[in-house]
Amino acid sequence: MAPSAQSLPTSVSDEKYANVKWEELGFGFCRTDNMYVAKCKHGESFQEGKIVPYADIQISPCSAVLNYGQGLYEGLKAYRTEDGRIVLFRPDQNALRLQSGANRLCMPYPTVDQFVSAVKQVVLANKKWIPPPGRGTLYIRPILFGSGPILGSLPVPEYTFTVFACPVGRYHKDNAGLNLKIEDKFRRAFPSGTGGVKSITNYSPVWITLAEAKAKGFSDVLFLDAATGKNVEELFASNVFIVKVEERVVPVEDLLDAEEVFCTGTAAIVTTIASVTFKEKKTEFKTGDKTLAAKLFATLTDIQMGSVEDKKGWIVELTDATKPGLKL
Amino acid sequence: MAPSAQSLPTSVSDEKYANVKWEELGFGFCRTDNMYVAKCKHGESFQEGKIVPYADIQISPCSAVLNYGQGLYEGLKAYRTEDGRIVLFRPDQNALRLQSGANRLCMPYPTVDQFVSAVKQVVLANKKWIPPPGRGTLYIRPILFGSGPILGSLPVPEYTFTVFACPVGRYHKDNAGLNLKIEDKFRRAFPSGTGGVKSITNYSPVWITLAEAKAKGFSDVLFLDAATGKNVEELFASNVFIVKVEERVVPVEDLLDAEEVFCTGTAAIVTTIASVTFKEKKTEFKTGDKTLAAKLFATLTDIQMGSVEDKKGWIVELTDATKPGLKL
Ligand SMILES: Cc1ncc(COP(=O)(O)O)c(C=O)c1O
Ligand SMILES: Cc1ncc(COP(=O)(O)O)c(C=O)c1O
Repeated sequence: MAPSAQSLPTSVSDEKYANVKWEELGFGFCRTDNMYVAKCKHGESFQEGKIVPYADIQISPCSAVLNYGQGLYEGLKAYRTEDGRIVLFRPDQNALRLQSGANRLCMPYPTVDQFVSAVKQVVLANKKWIPPPGRGTLYIRPILFGSGPILGSLPVPEYTFTVFACPVGRYHKDNAGLNLKIEDKFRRAFPSGTGGVKSITNYSPVWITLAEAKAKGFSDVLFLDAATGKNVEELFASNVFIVKVEERVVPVEDLLDAEEVFCTGTAAIVTTIASVTFKEKKTEFKTGDKTLAAKLFATLTDIQMGSVEDKKGWIVELTDATKPGLKL
Repeated sequence: MAPSAQSLPTSVSDEKYANVKWEELGFGFCRTDNMYVAKCKHGESFQEGKIVPYADIQISPCSAVLNYGQGLYEGLKAYRTEDGRIVLFRPDQNALRLQSGANRLCMPYPTVDQFVSAVKQVVLANKKWIPPPGRGTLYIRPILFGSGPILGSLPVPEYTFTVFACPVGRYHKDNAGLNLKIEDKFRRAFPSGTGGVKSITNYSPVWITLAEAKAKGFSDVLFLDAATGKNVEELFASNVFIVKVEERVVPVEDLLDAEEVFCTGTAAIVTTIASVTFKEKKTEFKTGDKTLAAKLFATLTDIQMGSVEDKKGWIVELTDATKPGLKL
């Protein structure tokens, strides 16, 4: 949670920055000014939604998401660059992942353009919540869910696509590298399940194991695959990498043998893993400035913050729609 | 859906029955008059909630249920007996199942007494929506979910327990027995997952396979276990039984060899299965008045409707709390 930010005034004003103690910013919910909402009836397509003041969502008690877990989320960030621009990092990729998840969970979805436009609108409508360069980022959370009432049988009559945003700092607090527990009992994703998409159903089932690991002092949990229980999968909300191993199935032994291990994600950015504990045995890895993780972190955030050239077309710059052409 | 019921007047009145065409009642959402709501902060216990007019729930866009699928549901029914009583069937068992699910998903939960009391209050507050004897039942849907905002890390600051109700008729429309597809690809529940509790995360991931099967004319889907893909598990929302087989692991071959097969559930009651199709091959079973399923259906509904004595203490009779001692 971000205690410093939570009780802040949220009224719209012309000040450049919201009254946030940026240096105290953690990774947690913080109420901002505005959000985006679009609805879609069964059999129709999403039309352009609108920006509304941030507020509770009104939803049927009998809605598909509350009763049957029909929901997806996405996560991306807006960055304020040193030279005063506001940029996004590959938002089209989040749109495409949302679309594949929507197919998996039988939902209609916004187009890539609608998605990216919604994200941009939310960023602009919450501009003063974007932390100063280097002090944090604006985390953007698009959600898509079955909002119409359903009992018994399909179809779900209505779907909602909403985007809100919160300023965030670091996701993991352990600066010296994470200490992971390799989960030996609970599995997370299974063949033919929803592990390949960002379904909300992938999270609550494994909170119990994350909570247990945190209670024992671990930073996060590393899950193994459900089919064999032998191969490395991912952390609670980030992917895992081993230095000098191509993208392939990674048995636990290869992980334990690695010189360096790190995780990546929108929230986690690139974070060094200092140790993993498997069946009570702790194995340590290289940490510090000399790691590849440190180099990758620097390169990635330099691209995102605009201080290193983006040669891949990953950066999407926002211009204020209400003042065309004006840089922010 | 119950189209006849959906656009009905929902205002409270003194009439004994709501203006529903009971003979057209299907199994679907129908708006009734009142619902129950109780909230609980993290670290506290559920206090007695209250009956409020049926309305949309207000929920944080960043709530645990919308973003991470932290939710459970229950389902039970209220019956109007021939002699004018209103009864429930083993509501304490639903309370206990909700509690075990809440432990699994890291949520606080109402006590058994709070749960049963909430259910009774919802039934009494929607009395005129309970169909006449033999014309249907009042389906009661308790839901428990993480309603407080959460981003990144636990705890969830607030939980909501809500109970609403809809009059329902038959769940499966196939009177001559169900024609099932044995799902060959998609699995539903996996070891260490949430298959043992009524988590909302168990439903949306398999809608895609239910929808595909229905599009091909099947009544429902029979899932096999994730670990081996060889043993029979359950239908989308009911349990499966084979006549003369004890409670044990049931390989598909045993099912295909069975003389009679049926499914059970609050919604399904006891429903004969006429056929299953496995890898394109259809196997048929005994149907009709002479089946054990027909006898079990009659006995169970006779107990529920009060025309056969309840020797097990399963029936819980409602008396109007506002008029103590008065039978309804
Ligand atoms: C389960 C899981 N795995 C991996 C990731 C990393 O994905 P991304 O790099 O898109 O943030 C996330 C991010 O939320 C996640 O929730
Ligand atoms: C997945 C699933 N299995 C089985 C059942 C049957 O349970 P019960 O007899 O409590 O209704 C249900 C009922 O909703 C269900 O959803």
